[in-house]
Amino acid sequence: MTEFELIAKLKPLLPTNDFVVTGAGDDCAVLELGAADRQTLFKTDAIVEGVHFTAETEPERIGHKALARCLSDIAAMGGTPVAAVVTLALPKGYDPERVLAIYRGLNALAARNQVAVVGGETTTSPGGLLLNVALLGTVPRGGALLRSGAQAGDAIFVSGELGGSIAGRHLDFEPRLAEGRWLAASGLVHALMDVSDGLAGDLPHLLAASSQPGTVLGADLLKAAIPISRIAKLRAREGDTAKPAIVAALTDGEDFELLFTVASRDAVKLLDGWKAEFPGVPLSCIGRVTSQAGIFLRDERGLRPLTTKGYEHFA
Amino acid sequence: MTEFELIAKLKPLLPTNDFVVTGAGDDCAVLELGAADRQTLFKTDAIVEGVHFTAETEPERIGHKALARCLSDIAAMGGTPVAAVVTLALPKGYDPERVLAIYRGLNALAARNQVAVVGGETTTSPGGLLLNVALLGTVPRGGALLRSGAQAGDAIFVSGELGGSIAGRHLDFEPRLAEGRWLAASGLVHALMDVSDGLAGDLPHLLAASSQPGTVLGADLLKAAIPISRIAKLRAREGDTAKPAIVAALTDGEDFELLFTVASRDAVKLLDGWKAEFPGVPLSCIGRVTSQAGIFLRDERGLRPLTTKGYEHFA
Repeated sequence: MTEFELIAKLKPLLPTNDFVVTGAGDDCAVLELGAADRQTLFKTDAIVEGVHFTAETEPERIGHKALARCLSDIAAMGGTPVAAVVTLALPKGYDPERVLAIYRGLNALAARNQVAVVGGETTTSPGGLLLNVALLGTVPRGGALLRSGAQAGDAIFVSGELGGSIAGRHLDFEPRLAEGRWLAASGLVHALMDVSDGLAGDLPHLLAASSQPGTVLGADLLKAAIPISRIAKLRAREGDTAKPAIVAALTDGEDFELLFTVASRDAVKLLDGWKAEFPGVPLSCIGRVTSQAGIFLRDERGLRPLTTKGYEHFA
Repeated sequence: MTEFELIAKLKPLLPTNDFVVTGAGDDCAVLELGAADRQTLFKTDAIVEGVHFTAETEPERIGHKALARCLSDIAAMGGTPVAAVVTLALPKGYDPERVLAIYRGLNALAARNQVAVVGGETTTSPGGLLLNVALLGTVPRGGALLRSGAQAGDAIFVSGELGGSIAGRHLDFEPRLAEGRWLAASGLVHALMDVSDGLAGDLPHLLAASSQPGTVLGADLLKAAIPISRIAKLRAREGDTAKPAIVAALTDGEDFELLFTVASRDAVKLLDGWKAEFPGVPLSCIGRVTSQAGIFLRDERGLRPLTTKGYEHFA
């Protein structure tokens, strides 16, 4: 059983109730807790030593990253974060000064985003350090941006630049909260998610969530339009990685950028509005949603199928 | 630096905001999310292989326990649980069938209590299994039962029977949700928490939370009134443990019973009401809150100081 098969088996078994507007499967759950004007967002996420950071990572950056990942999920709903609870699983004999430093990093990011930290459990780790953050947020009633609204013909956008996050950005990124809220308020966005597993890994999720029986969606992307980060180009040039920069941009994880679609007639309006509001943050129209399964990348030599490993027959 | 010194250092550094009614330090945080009639409860808790269960524990019971602990914290606020998100950190090569079984146990308890499971993250464990549950609940506006309302002269009550949970109850207990809500609705309870670290470990937390500058609270307990579980008596008699049964009842962890205080003039009324409502659940008045520091246990030979390890000079 693969991880995806396991999730497919688990999901229909999860109990639900009348409070649930959107359950497991989107960036956050959306709940109805009785407020007239807003709904509640709910998310949990863990980072683990040896997977998401190393034993050498500065503890402030570990704390920052754990919260930032959850904040990115709130951003991906167009929401505003409110309160976090933290679970820290520590190996025996872990230095308390490092715990304080982890919280310094987490608290600083929380304070910058007006997030309260309202609980902090500490337990024994069965191995290295594990840091779990659960986060509550709010979104105007009915305003949450889901993964599931994309339509054939939509323009596909991505914020920022992709690839090479491992060089440092994955520990220090600032979640796109203002951008997410602005996109939600624009009323133009059909579907949105954050890119955490690489564009080639995440776009299929957005398309699958938006597909319906009888209407399977795909995408055509324009190679020249994919925003490649400077660090991904640098790493490719200096041989730090065997991956060409375009493959890094398509497949590296932990970009934490916003990936979304709007009707093609609204694309220019949205792009102009974004540039006025966020002049320092690139926004790229990278392609369009199609009504045919599969994701294809167009370059000077034609259209090639994109896989989660990049794209096939890349020379 | 001890764990308590670390927590004392951490707590004042946690950022807060206008949504927070009660922050870290009680059984749950209490938040104000804009509903006219209710407030939101928020809690996170993790269980770890080798600490809270073993590699041999049936996976259904692991799932049950992880959620039950959080539900007990909602019960300890007088609240109603609404939705949970789950983080499962798995060792490499962990059997997917066991993951399904963990969720079966968790889902069954959730469904019995009308709790939705709205997110389930899976990550790699740095060692053994770790299962974190974050839980949202609601409580009528202003109705949350805190640890901090006890007054000198109050009668002290505890539900159920204490001690010997390790024999099995710690994996199978049903959280006292109905009882917690009934206590909140009674309007008689001054302070309430759940007993997770043993009566002798937790009562000092309730008294400390209720103490104010110039008014330090303590307690006198009556040894004969402490409800000792049959299993604790059995284990003491059969030599499974070197602890006398009364010490087990005072110091064993994971009872997950409700510990609370009411004005002494309301004690009989409360006890009568409880018996009518929950005839199958023992409720014991075990002593009273005093206006003098320290917890003392009264037996046939007088009053002895109680410590977190039981009580001193126990013969």
